Amino acid sequence: MINTFCRKPLWETSRTLAAVAQGKIPADLVITHARLVNVCTHEIQEDVSVAVACGRIALVGDASRCIGPGTQVTDAKGRYLAPGFLDGHIHVESSMMGVGEYARAVIPHGTVGIYMDPHEICNVLGLDGVRCMLEDASRTPLKAMLTTPSCVPAVPGFEDTGACVGPEEIAGTMDWPECVGIGEMMNFPGVLQGDPKVHEITGAALKAGKIVTGHYSLPETGPGLNAYIASGVRCCHESTRAQDALAKMRLGMYAMLREGSAWHDLKEVAKSVTEHEIDTRFAVLVSDDAHPHTLVEQGHLDHILRRALEEGIDPVTAIQMVTINCAQCFQMDHELGSITPGKCADMVLLESLETIKIKKVWIDGNLTAENGSMTMEFPSYTYPEWATRSIHVGEEVTADTFRLPASSGSVTVRAIEVIPGRVGSLERHITLASQNGLLESDPSQDVLKTAVFERHRGTGKKGFGFVKGFGITCGAMASTVAHDAHNLLVIGTNDEDMALAANTLIQCGGGMTAVQKGTVLGTVPLPIAGLMNDKPAAEMSRMVEALEKAWKQIGCTMPSPFMTMALISLACLPKLRLTDRGLVDCESFCFVPLEV
Amino acid sequence: MINTFCRKPLWETSRTLAAVAQGKIPADLVITHARLVNVCTHEIQEDVSVAVACGRIALVGDASRCIGPGTQVTDAKGRYLAPGFLDGHIHVESSMMGVGEYARAVIPHGTVGIYMDPHEICNVLGLDGVRCMLEDASRTPLKAMLTTPSCVPAVPGFEDTGACVGPEEIAGTMDWPECVGIGEMMNFPGVLQGDPKVHEITGAALKAGKIVTGHYSLPETGPGLNAYIASGVRCCHESTRAQDALAKMRLGMYAMLREGSAWHDLKEVAKSVTEHEIDTRFAVLVSDDAHPHTLVEQGHLDHILRRALEEGIDPVTAIQMVTINCAQCFQMDHELGSITPGKCADMVLLESLETIKIKKVWIDGNLTAENGSMTMEFPSYTYPEWATRSIHVGEEVTADTFRLPASSGSVTVRAIEVIPGRVGSLERHITLASQNGLLESDPSQDVLKTAVFERHRGTGKKGFGFVKGFGITCGAMASTVAHDAHNLLVIGTNDEDMALAANTLIQCGGGMTAVQKGTVLGTVPLPIAGLMNDKPAAEMSRMVEALEKAWKQIGCTMPSPFMTMALISLACLPKLRLTDRGLVDCESFCFVPLEV
Repeated sequence: MINTFCRKPLWETSRTLAAVAQGKIPADLVITHARLVNVCTHEIQEDVSVAVACGRIALVGDASRCIGPGTQVTDAKGRYLAPGFLDGHIHVESSMMGVGEYARAVIPHGTVGIYMDPHEICNVLGLDGVRCMLEDASRTPLKAMLTTPSCVPAVPGFEDTGACVGPEEIAGTMDWPECVGIGEMMNFPGVLQGDPKVHEITGAALKAGKIVTGHYSLPETGPGLNAYIASGVRCCHESTRAQDALAKMRLGMYAMLREGSAWHDLKEVAKSVTEHEIDTRFAVLVSDDAHPHTLVEQGHLDHILRRALEEGIDPVTAIQMVTINCAQCFQMDHELGSITPGKCADMVLLESLETIKIKKVWIDGNLTAENGSMTMEFPSYTYPEWATRSIHVGEEVTADTFRLPASSGSVTVRAIEVIPGRVGSLERHITLASQNGLLESDPSQDVLKTAVFERHRGTGKKGFGFVKGFGITCGAMASTVAHDAHNLLVIGTNDEDMALAANTLIQCGGGMTAVQKGTVLGTVPLPIAGLMNDKPAAEMSRMVEALEKAWKQIGCTMPSPFMTMALISLACLPKLRLTDRGLVDCESFCFVPLEV
Repeated sequence: MINTFCRKPLWETSRTLAAVAQGKIPADLVITHARLVNVCTHEIQEDVSVAVACGRIALVGDASRCIGPGTQVTDAKGRYLAPGFLDGHIHVESSMMGVGEYARAVIPHGTVGIYMDPHEICNVLGLDGVRCMLEDASRTPLKAMLTTPSCVPAVPGFEDTGACVGPEEIAGTMDWPECVGIGEMMNFPGVLQGDPKVHEITGAALKAGKIVTGHYSLPETGPGLNAYIASGVRCCHESTRAQDALAKMRLGMYAMLREGSAWHDLKEVAKSVTEHEIDTRFAVLVSDDAHPHTLVEQGHLDHILRRALEEGIDPVTAIQMVTINCAQCFQMDHELGSITPGKCADMVLLESLETIKIKKVWIDGNLTAENGSMTMEFPSYTYPEWATRSIHVGEEVTADTFRLPASSGSVTVRAIEVIPGRVGSLERHITLASQNGLLESDPSQDVLKTAVFERHRGTGKKGFGFVKGFGITCGAMASTVAHDAHNLLVIGTNDEDMALAANTLIQCGGGMTAVQKGTVLGTVPLPIAGLMNDKPAAEMSRMVEALEKAWKQIGCTMPSPFMTMALISLACLPKLRLTDRGLVDCESFCFVPLEV
C-alpha cells in the first residue's frame, strides 16, 4: 500500500475535505449517478454522487457543487457503487507471486485491501522475509495490512524451519506501521493449555490494542472454543460446518467464511447465515489461499461473492461481509469498509449485483483498474538476492541418497495416505518386498517413496517415508512448497527420477517440478524463498497448468495435487506426516519409525 | 470505574479464563438457566449458562464443569440475561450529583458504563475539575469513560468561563488512561469553516486513535453534515428529526438517539429505524442529560429502552443500541457490550423484555445492584475545597446592583423570549415605561429583569437584559447552572429579591434558588463547582421538587423551568442570549445593546 493504508492521514486532510464537501474547493473526483450500495444501513440508494479529495471521500449525496474545472467526473450511469473489497485473511504466498503481481491480479477483481499473514515466507526467511513482502506491498496501491505470523515454527521440535520467531520478536512487530495484529494463532492447543509463551504472543497484540486472528479447526464449540475466544482471539476462518461458524458468531467471534482455491467451505458454512435469521455483522468472507489459476480463471473476492450469492446470501449482506464487517473486525472501520465521508476512497463500480462483474476500481480515489485490467502502473519490487537463494541442501543429492536399506526381505512400513481435497491424512501399514536389500516404491500398490530434505541451513537432515494416494506410475515430483517448514519434498517411483526432481529445484532456487525417466516434464520455478516468482498471474497460471499436465503424464490421478502434496509435511494436522526429522505421529506428537 | 474499565487487562487473565472455560479451575461466578439476549447475532438463546472469572466472561454455554466449591452459582430461572447497558453520551453534572452518587443512582437501572463529557465542570474548573470527576469515578464500579470536553469556552470572546482549554491541553488528555476521545464538538461552525484550532482538536483525537464525538444540530444533511463527518466526527446525539438521524447513519455516523430529561427526541427520531428497513448497527440510545428526579422516578437507560419499545423498536434491537452498537461506536467491543468470552462480565438480569425491569446487575462479575438497590458499597469521594469554593463574584450584590437607568421615559428593549421544552429562543422588542428614570421588570407583560454575574474570578463583569416567558409574578430565581460558562444568573420581578437570590447562592457556594418578598422559598445547594452536590439522588430529587414548588409559588408557569433558565446564557444557540459580557445576537455573533 502507498503510505500505509491511506494516502494521507485524516488529520492532515480534514480541512480540505470539509471545504470540498461544501463546494469551497473543487473535488479531485466526482462519481455521479451511482446506485450506492450502502453497507452501513444495508440499503441501495438511487442516484447518488460521491466527491473525493486527497484520496478520501468528502461527500456522499449531491456533489454538483464539488465539481470544478480540474475535477474528474465519472458518470456511473446507474451502476452499483460499492466499497472496495477487503480480504480478511490471506496468505499471499499461496498465489506463488509476490505482493506486487498479486496486487495486479486481484485489484481488477475489486480487492482494495488484504489482511495478509506471510506465514510461509516467515518460515523460510523469518521477519526479514516479512519485511520484503511489506516492501513489495509498499509499491502497490493495494492496502496490505500485516498480521504478524504467530506460529513459526508451527510444530517446534518436529521440523527445521529457516527461522524461529519468538514472542519478543513478534511483540516487536506490533510497532510496525503496517501491522494490525497477529496472524492465525494455529497453536490452539497451546492457547487451551495456557502455554505462557503462546499467551505472551496473543498478549503482545492485545497490549498494543491490536487484533489476534485465529485458527480453531476443532468441531468442538464448547469449553475449547470458549477458552480460545476468552484468550482474546477475535476471528477464525477454519469453520467447515455451519454450526461451528454460527457458534463462533454467537460467541462474539468474527466467523471468516472461507472459499479458497483448495478449501471450498462456503457451500456448508454459508448455511450459518442463510438457515438462521441472525444479525450477520460478525460474518466475513475470506479466501485464505488463492492459487494463480483461481485468480486468473475465477477471480478473487468477486468470485467468492458470486459463490455467496449462489448459496443464497443476499447481495448487500454479502458485500457487507467483504467491506464493513471486515473493517469492524479489525477496528479499522474509521478508515475502510464504507463509502462515507472521511474514509479512504476505495470503491468498486459493479455492472450488476447479481454477477458482481467489476467495471472500475478506485483506490485512494485513483482509478486503479477498469474492465478487468489494471489502469495504474507501479514499480515492481525486486526481492534481494539472499531471498532468492534460499535452497541450501547439505549434500549432493544423487540416486544413492534415496537408498533405504530394508531390515528383512519383507517389511511392513508406515505410509501416509492422502485424501484429495481434504487436509487430514491416514496412517496405513503396507508390506513391501525388499529389492536387493532395499525398500523401493511400489506403484502397483500406489505406494511411493518420499523424502524431505532440510533446505534452509544445509544441515543435511532428511527424513524418509512412503505416501499412498497420488497414483504416480512412473516418475517423480518435488516441491519446496511444503507446509509449514517448506523443506524440499520429493515423491517418486524410482531413485534416479527423485534425484533429478530434487536437483531441478535445487538449481532453480525452488519451486515445483515433475520428471520422468530422466526428463524434466514441467517446472514452476519459485525462486523467491522457494515459494514465489515475480512473474504475472497469467504466466504463473500457465506454468501451473503445464505442470499439472506433467503430473498427469507421470500418472498422478489427483486434481491439483500440489496442494495435497504440500500438506504431507504439515505436522500440525492429523494423522501421520513426514518432516526432515522423520515420520511424526501428529496425534501423540512423537516420532515413529518407518518400519512398523 | 475500578482499574480503568476492567478489573484486569485481558492479557493478564487470558490463561485463567482459558482454564476456567475448560473446567480446570473453578469459576468465580456461574449464572445458570438464563435466556441470553445475544446482541451479536440478535437472538434469544434458551437455557444458557455463563461462567465468570477475574471479572471477565470465561464461557457461555454449558458451564456445569466450571462450578467448583468456591463458585457462586446464581440461577437465573429463565430470566433474560443481557449485556450491561452503556450510555454513549452523558453529562454527569446534569444529574446535579458527582459520579459516585450518580453511579449509585444509575447502576440499579442496568447502567454499567458511561461515556461522559464533563463539559460543565470543565467550564468552571478546567481540566483540574475533570480530574476530580475521574477521581470520583475511580471509586465506583461504574465504567466511566472520559471524552475530553472539546469546547471550553463554548463561545470564546462572548463570555467569561472559569477555564479555557486549548488544543494542546486537550491533546495532552489523550494519554490519560480514562480518555477514549473528545467530547461533543459543538463548534461545528468551526469545523465547517476549517478553523485550524478546531481541526487541531479533532486531529489530536484522530492521531491518538481515539474517537471524536459530535454535536451537529442543523437540519441540513447535505454539504454541512458531510463536511462535519469528513472531518472525523464519529457520532452525534443532536438529531431531533428522523430524517436527520437516518442521514447520519447512511453517512456512516453513529446516530445517538436521545431521550434526556429535557430532550424528548425519541418519539420522532425512533422513526429513523422503525419506518425504514435498515441495518441498525449505527443506532445508539443515549440520555445526554438526566436530572435527579428523572433518575429516581423513571430510571436511566432502562427507561430509555422502555421508551424505545413504546416507539416500536424491537427489544433485542433496542438492547443492541445500548450495548454492542455503543461499544462498536467507541471501538471498545473487544472489552464491552456483549456477553461473550473474554469481555468484561457486565451483565443485567431482566424480569422481562417488555418491561426492562432490572432484577440484578453485575459489573466485572460482581453483583452490584439487585431489585433496584445497590448491593455493592464503595467509598465516596470528597471534592477538594477549591472545587467547592467556586463562586467569586467581584462585588457585593445589593438591590442597587440591579438598577438599570433608562435613557428616556419610554424605552424599547430587547427581550429574550424562551420557549418551554425547546432550546431555541426568540428576540422580542418590548416597550417599557421607565420608573423614576430606571428600567424595571414588568410582570404584566411577563417581562423580567435578568442579570448574569461573572462568578469565577471576581472580575465584577456583569450583563443585564430582560426575559419573557417565565410567568413569574412576584419574586426572583437564581442559578449557577447556566450553560456553558455557568456564571451566576438571576431573574426577578424586583431588585431586592434578585439581590437576595444572588446572595443566597453566593453564600451556599452555588446552586438554584427561588425567593419572594425577602424570604428564601427553596434552595438546591450545589457547592461542587456550583453544579453538583454530594447528596444521594433521592435527596437531590426531593430538593429539586421542593424548589419546583417554590418556583410555582412565585408564579412560574413553566414545567421544570431550571433547564430553560439554564440556557438563557448559552450563546451558541439562536437567537438572543445574555452572558456576563452583555446581550449576544447568536446569529450574527455580535453584542447588541439592551435598548433597541
